[in-house]
Amino acid sequence: MGTGMTEKTLIVSKIRNGTVIDHITGGHALDVLRVLDVNGRDGEVLAIAINVPSRKLGVKDMVKFEGRELESGEVDRIALLAPKATINIVRDYDVVEKQVVRLPKILKGIVKCVNPTCISNSKEPIQSTLYIKQEEPFYAKCHYCGHIMEKDELLKQF
Amino acid sequence: MGTGMTEKTLIVSKIRNGTVIDHITGGHALDVLRVLDVNGRDGEVLAIAINVPSRKLGVKDMVKFEGRELESGEVDRIALLAPKATINIVRDYDVVEKQVVRLPKILKGIVKCVNPTCISNSKEPIQSTLYIKQEEPFYAKCHYCGHIMEKDELLKQF
Repeated sequence: MGTGMTEKTLIVSKIRNGTVIDHITGGHALDVLRVLDVNGRDGEVLAIAINVPSRKLGVKDMVKFEGRELESGEVDRIALLAPKATINIVRDYDVVEKQVVRLPKILKGIVKCVNPTCISNSKEPIQSTLYIKQEEPFYAKCHYCGHIMEKDELLKQF
Repeated sequence: MGTGMTEKTLIVSKIRNGTVIDHITGGHALDVLRVLDVNGRDGEVLAIAINVPSRKLGVKDMVKFEGRELESGEVDRIALLAPKATINIVRDYDVVEKQVVRLPKILKGIVKCVNPTCISNSKEPIQSTLYIKQEEPFYAKCHYCGHIMEKDELLKQF
């Protein structure tokens, strides 16, 4: 990889309580932070590795953050950004829960339909609902107007 | 600090060639990346620690990046964001140069005057020039229109 930062040396740092998101698609760690609305300005303790070597993915990103566990809507967004990510919940230095993120079949209230005239974008109290019809290549379809969307169109909303 | 991420464990990871920016004001690492126009999307290898304990600063941020050295305009911007930062240039795993960032007396072409009617914001080929008149509390003065600016007004431009 031509880099001196190895996977191992970054894994050395342990968190006490919090979340480790590993196997993030290389170069997308900062997008994950944006999705989680975390930037360090509120004193959050974070460690981030970007484009480090990974046996599984070639390169990967990793985010560790202290004192925070994820909500399910957050996990769904991370699944869109980084479909191979793994999420470990750490309590008192032990991993108490491992999650593999999985693209859900339905995205409800997570991302908006990109068709501006779709009823889900009107002032009606309608929650956006997209069906993920295919993962690779990705496309999703709006429940209300049938509009077809690619992944980039959804990621832009984060 | 109530955190399991110590300064030590993060310093463990070494880079071969590149730059370590240490002692960044806590919570400002991502701003430093923005200033440097680095986000990992171009395959840059990065390690970032945010709000980790520091004897000197209480908490601090740190950014390590592989394969990149800084230009002087970049160092000036970092000085605005993180006036206590230290910059180490690493070649072949050795620190070959240490720099303490220092607020320059003059910012030329680094940030714009915030007065929209200032001649430096017109279409004239005039480079913005601000004098840093005082560091604490910070204020700067435009060479052309005399407008006085606080730090936040400058940081917003990054």
